[in-house]
Amino acid sequence: MVSIRPSVRQTPAYVPGEQPQTNDFIKLNTNENPYDPPAQVLAAVAAELPKVRLYPDPVSTQLRQAAADLYGVQLNQVLAGNGSDDILNIVVRTFVDPGEIVAFLDLTYSLYETIASVHGAKVQKIATDANFDLTGPVICPGAKLIFLASPNPPKGKHLKREFLWQTCAQAEGVVVIDEAYGDFSDEDHWDFLQEFDNVIISRTLSKSYSLAGMRVGLAIAAPTLIEEMDKVRDSYNLDRVAQALGTAALRNQAEFVPLWQKVRSTRTRLMAQLAKLDFQVCPSDANFVFAAPRWIAAADLYQALKEKKILVRYFNHPRITNYLRITVGTDAEIDQLLSAIASLKGSLE
Amino acid sequence: MVSIRPSVRQTPAYVPGEQPQTNDFIKLNTNENPYDPPAQVLAAVAAELPKVRLYPDPVSTQLRQAAADLYGVQLNQVLAGNGSDDILNIVVRTFVDPGEIVAFLDLTYSLYETIASVHGAKVQKIATDANFDLTGPVICPGAKLIFLASPNPPKGKHLKREFLWQTCAQAEGVVVIDEAYGDFSDEDHWDFLQEFDNVIISRTLSKSYSLAGMRVGLAIAAPTLIEEMDKVRDSYNLDRVAQALGTAALRNQAEFVPLWQKVRSTRTRLMAQLAKLDFQVCPSDANFVFAAPRWIAAADLYQALKEKKILVRYFNHPRITNYLRITVGTDAEIDQLLSAIASLKGSLE
Repeated sequence: MVSIRPSVRQTPAYVPGEQPQTNDFIKLNTNENPYDPPAQVLAAVAAELPKVRLYPDPVSTQLRQAAADLYGVQLNQVLAGNGSDDILNIVVRTFVDPGEIVAFLDLTYSLYETIASVHGAKVQKIATDANFDLTGPVICPGAKLIFLASPNPPKGKHLKREFLWQTCAQAEGVVVIDEAYGDFSDEDHWDFLQEFDNVIISRTLSKSYSLAGMRVGLAIAAPTLIEEMDKVRDSYNLDRVAQALGTAALRNQAEFVPLWQKVRSTRTRLMAQLAKLDFQVCPSDANFVFAAPRWIAAADLYQALKEKKILVRYFNHPRITNYLRITVGTDAEIDQLLSAIASLKGSLE
Repeated sequence: MVSIRPSVRQTPAYVPGEQPQTNDFIKLNTNENPYDPPAQVLAAVAAELPKVRLYPDPVSTQLRQAAADLYGVQLNQVLAGNGSDDILNIVVRTFVDPGEIVAFLDLTYSLYETIASVHGAKVQKIATDANFDLTGPVICPGAKLIFLASPNPPKGKHLKREFLWQTCAQAEGVVVIDEAYGDFSDEDHWDFLQEFDNVIISRTLSKSYSLAGMRVGLAIAAPTLIEEMDKVRDSYNLDRVAQALGTAALRNQAEFVPLWQKVRSTRTRLMAQLAKLDFQVCPSDANFVFAAPRWIAAADLYQALKEKKILVRYFNHPRITNYLRITVGTDAEIDQLLSAIASLKGSLE
């Protein structure tokens, strides 16, 4: 019998959101952007197809340069990942030996725990209050790595900036600020990079740049950190088409900004309407809304909506068993969702 | 100062082959297929572009099913990787704890050492004879993982089947048979899977399926191994376009077979001509030829060819300092290479 590494054997498999490969669902469950990338971004693919037999640029130079230009940093401060999940994985494997501590909030993006556990790291969960918020900076002696998502799922609010700053100042190891949803708010943490040499900002093009299907992530940090992370990275981790689409997306940021504004105004409307439909609604800085219906079990509502071909996200986790996470879709999709909820609610009254 | 994991800090960065992003080289240095994939394979991209905003199938079902059908195995025996480098990396992280032994030949694909070292594994190199061949089965007590490439670079010959079989029978851990170049020969090792539950066969679509630019790799093994490897895999490790192109390539294998035959006949001609040009030529089962010029230092020939815009691979490694590795290009490319070599040789006489 083959022996499996204990840390792997003992870790339950990560369960990603449902990804039906059919088109018959209104898909509001995994925080994709409801709007396609503009045509000039998709046009970047054509130049790559005649070259698929050739290896891609191993270090994704064009993509990283586009990111460096956009974010006002140097090329050697940018690492490209096969999605930001690849970035998170690389960070763990660069800075943490098995047995050492990785810290993150209870609750947050659940992949942090999977990646840390598979690696054999010790997991330390930082308590949050009843609103899933920090009550102070994260103080975690000995932690080699602290993951902090801001906006933080499942709620989608930014963590308090002052607590983040104090966390970075006091951390003994690396702090990753995961800004996967950053473009849907006015807040960012680029200034942290000027102050701290232990901060890595992680970004993804999956949500704000409508490229979830293409797996493009970025890490931005001090060159000394990027250089070591680069050794852990698979040398050809981004294919030609992903590099081309990612580069074109960042170079065409101006085309995406109105889409983010649209998502934000739909978000405002969704929150207001859910409140009217007797949900407890959490404020959101992301492209999703976390809300708890007061008149039905969340699991039942999830199931009833699914039967109506509307997919939202339900987490079977004790702290949030009453909540649903709803991705901000198009206005038309949100209208269908709201009317489905209203009709279910009516039928129960 | 941030602390880097010792195994990472101490590992030198892997150096991939040169990938000039211009078109002015005859590129015979990184074993790409000289022929583009057929049009019906490339056509698979069109259906994906309208869906790039949506996450891909996290488990690459279509691609894995195409592989299962082609290789006569079950779906749960196939894992899809972001290139076979991703597969190799996943294998190390699934079966080897830091400090445990990973074994491979001296010489072979140099990435095995990088991946094992970054992970903090103990590296054990198995001696080969003067012809870079095995002298018997690999006996390596305690090794959790043995990497064996067949055909084995840098020479490109299959390892002796009997020795491979005995290695698998005696191994205490997992044996990866890396068949990256398998399609350019008549030999394979599928029958090993029937006999041994500790064998993983690794395949890539980079070479034989002309998709180096797209990063598609496969692992085929017992379901019990695949299930654990799947936990280590990034959940969305293959983007939509890579999955679609990989699936279409495998489903259109018949279109590729004549290209492999062409490569093999060009290989035969290249080997014969290099011998006439006073090279010591190694026999090859792959899409490259490993050969040592008797009349010039290999490093000098590499440089002289590069000045003529012909890229071949030179390894600055003590055992092979007299050799060049030449990818089998089109007949026209190989003619240009041979005539450049002949003219250099003439100018020295």
